[in-house]
Amino acid sequence: MKLGWLMSPAGNHPAAWLHSRAALHGANDFAHYVKLVRKAEAAKFDFVFQADAAGARDGNMAALSRAPRFMNIWEPLSLLSALVGVTEKIGLAGTMSTSYYEPYNLARQYASLDHLSGGRAGWNVVTSAHPAGGYNFGRDGLEDHALRYERAREFVEICFGLWDSWDDDAFTLDRESGVYFDLDKMHYLRHKGTFFSVRGPLNIARAPQGRPVIIQAGGSEAGKELAAETAEVIFTRDASLEHARAFYADVKGRMARFGRAPDHLKIMAGLTTIVGRTAGEAEEKFDELQSMIHPVVGLEVLSEDLEGIDLSDLPLDQPIPRARIPATANRHKQFFDQIIRLIDEEHLTLRQLYLRYGAARGGDVIRGTASQVADYMEASFRGGVADGFMLAFSLVPDGLDDFIALVVPELQRRGLFRTEYEGTTLREHLGLLRPTSRYQATGASHLAAD
Amino acid sequence: MKLGWLMSPAGNHPAAWLHSRAALHGANDFAHYVKLVRKAEAAKFDFVFQADAAGARDGNMAALSRAPRFMNIWEPLSLLSALVGVTEKIGLAGTMSTSYYEPYNLARQYASLDHLSGGRAGWNVVTSAHPAGGYNFGRDGLEDHALRYERAREFVEICFGLWDSWDDDAFTLDRESGVYFDLDKMHYLRHKGTFFSVRGPLNIARAPQGRPVIIQAGGSEAGKELAAETAEVIFTRDASLEHARAFYADVKGRMARFGRAPDHLKIMAGLTTIVGRTAGEAEEKFDELQSMIHPVVGLEVLSEDLEGIDLSDLPLDQPIPRARIPATANRHKQFFDQIIRLIDEEHLTLRQLYLRYGAARGGDVIRGTASQVADYMEASFRGGVADGFMLAFSLVPDGLDDFIALVVPELQRRGLFRTEYEGTTLREHLGLLRPTSRYQATGASHLAAD
Repeated sequence: MKLGWLMSPAGNHPAAWLHSRAALHGANDFAHYVKLVRKAEAAKFDFVFQADAAGARDGNMAALSRAPRFMNIWEPLSLLSALVGVTEKIGLAGTMSTSYYEPYNLARQYASLDHLSGGRAGWNVVTSAHPAGGYNFGRDGLEDHALRYERAREFVEICFGLWDSWDDDAFTLDRESGVYFDLDKMHYLRHKGTFFSVRGPLNIARAPQGRPVIIQAGGSEAGKELAAETAEVIFTRDASLEHARAFYADVKGRMARFGRAPDHLKIMAGLTTIVGRTAGEAEEKFDELQSMIHPVVGLEVLSEDLEGIDLSDLPLDQPIPRARIPATANRHKQFFDQIIRLIDEEHLTLRQLYLRYGAARGGDVIRGTASQVADYMEASFRGGVADGFMLAFSLVPDGLDDFIALVVPELQRRGLFRTEYEGTTLREHLGLLRPTSRYQATGASHLAAD
Repeated sequence: MKLGWLMSPAGNHPAAWLHSRAALHGANDFAHYVKLVRKAEAAKFDFVFQADAAGARDGNMAALSRAPRFMNIWEPLSLLSALVGVTEKIGLAGTMSTSYYEPYNLARQYASLDHLSGGRAGWNVVTSAHPAGGYNFGRDGLEDHALRYERAREFVEICFGLWDSWDDDAFTLDRESGVYFDLDKMHYLRHKGTFFSVRGPLNIARAPQGRPVIIQAGGSEAGKELAAETAEVIFTRDASLEHARAFYADVKGRMARFGRAPDHLKIMAGLTTIVGRTAGEAEEKFDELQSMIHPVVGLEVLSEDLEGIDLSDLPLDQPIPRARIPATANRHKQFFDQIIRLIDEEHLTLRQLYLRYGAARGGDVIRGTASQVADYMEASFRGGVADGFMLAFSLVPDGLDDFIALVVPELQRRGLFRTEYEGTTLREHLGLLRPTSRYQATGASHLAAD
């Protein structure tokens, strides 16, 4: 079973920062992060993960000023790089957008991180899905979903090519002949595409992992197709076990068409847990946080993932009229679908809906004793739902501490989770192959060089 | 006197890696860098510096395969961030190009680095000056010098604005009222310019230093003007003391027009030193390295800074015919001018010229005993040439070790260099003010928000 931690300074619950046990002002406190990440490493987590957005969120600013969304966050590449020097084994993964970066810059920053960390880098390939980002990059808000995915596909293809610029043994540094690198082992990409023109070569040696571990989270048709072709980890977040199992089978089933084995993609389910010494204690912790969600914040959490619609005129104790819901999602399809499902299947009032959805952005908050939480994880893991879990904790540091102290030993007792790192790279932790360069492979790479 | 170190894994001499005492394969070895940077910190250097280029150099590939130019380098932001966790006080500065980055991405990466490091970030603002970079970013080679500077100016203006997005006290995290940040202390930039359209706000709190220390190196008219308006550190490299003194007076003289005091800009002269226990020993070390420059490498070093012209048909023991030299520079004007000056003033043969220029890219290699090197530095420092030095060492780690062991104590004895850091931020080391936000300043910022 693979475990990642979605880092957060105070917890992922929208009211976490209000809790007296959350770290105040932890968002810019690197020492605070170092402590947390060292705990995750001591517990042998596969990786820590830094989410991202290309701009502070727009919306109801009164709500956002109570529960900020990407107002004050670390830039992922710099944070992950800073963690290199204070950790030894744990993987370092983060989001970087294909919408607003140049592939050459991103490819070299991630290659550099992989070198710095001795092969611990993971890149979550996303298309930016909120209009606020666009305004910071010369766009008039959010671009069309299809266009964003088309660019993402080309972007990833370029990065894959750039990461093969130099064969693994290109830099010979042979003092006798005076030759530093072997010219035959340097490759120009010469990519000319719809969105980008990139000649190469990349100005850094091939990375220890060949390339960073490729992570994706898309739930759309285009997202699943891109994932089956290129992803090595997928994050999913599905309130329904049945949907999650179908998604797992769907994506893994697509891989054969791209010449890939199902095992070379790890599906990691988003999992928010609250652990107590008793089930009642866990429930109390959850209720305490839920009671702290201000209604204006609750509505904003829903609105953000419902294409920004205004819900403020609606009565809280009746369901949302179906006519108010947009027909399709152009932002995050996974989150949008989750809300629709909750509306259609659970018939909640608006207040019940924002509490249900807002607690973990649509995911269940699994609460109970360590044994109950481990039962849930084991059932998902053995039941064709997930190869591992992307952990989020409602309250930090408590949630992380409790999980490590109580659930990890239980998973280890059950033989589900490691007691020691198997290797030193993130690929080794995850059981993923190191990709062979397209120029050295005997067969074709699974994303061929055109 | 301020001291920075231009990091290099094996030394800045084009033949350094061939030397038996240079670190082989140090370019991707982070542990090697950690050791070097910790030495620089123990010696109380103001900062370390990572140079950059937006692509592996083009040119005579046979020459480049013997003396690589940006073939295998750290990406600066990731390297500097990684150094955060393994150092405590030393400044962390590097180059990032205004030609091929998006201002929003760069502004947040540097703000993040400044937070991570507790206020130790420095940004060297450059325009990319070699065609090889352009090919990686959809350009047909190198853009025009004036266009690059126009973009750079707008780019810096946007970054300055984004760095003021949040007042220093915007994030109140007041649990009693439930308000995380004060809406009145968040500012939209709403920049619409020639090259960029950026709304803001930046998605990270104002940096500990307000903004990173702004470094520049341009020697052109446009470069000097931009530096007088916005730079806090300038790197210069001038073979002639007379020219250097004129440059110092020229740039500092322009500052009043922008409402700035001369002391708020530190001019740091590039200085390559080789120290020996005797003058003869230093000379021997230098001669040994010079004898290792392969002619094809020597010609390539010249060619790169002479707009890429081919020199391979010319006899080595005669001067370059003046007609072969391009009339003006579109790449690095400072380097180009240096070569022209050497040709016009010193009447060297081609071989003498590449040895003279190639040893330290136009700069003198100051060699001698610690006392002689300190004499040179003291004379420049007291003589209106430089406020400090950007140190480069022909051979690493020896050059760094020797300088620290022999020259630093001599400078300290003379009262020219610190024995302890005065503060914790790079601005404090350099004696620079922390800029007040444009939204909080009573007077106008020196680069107004229009």
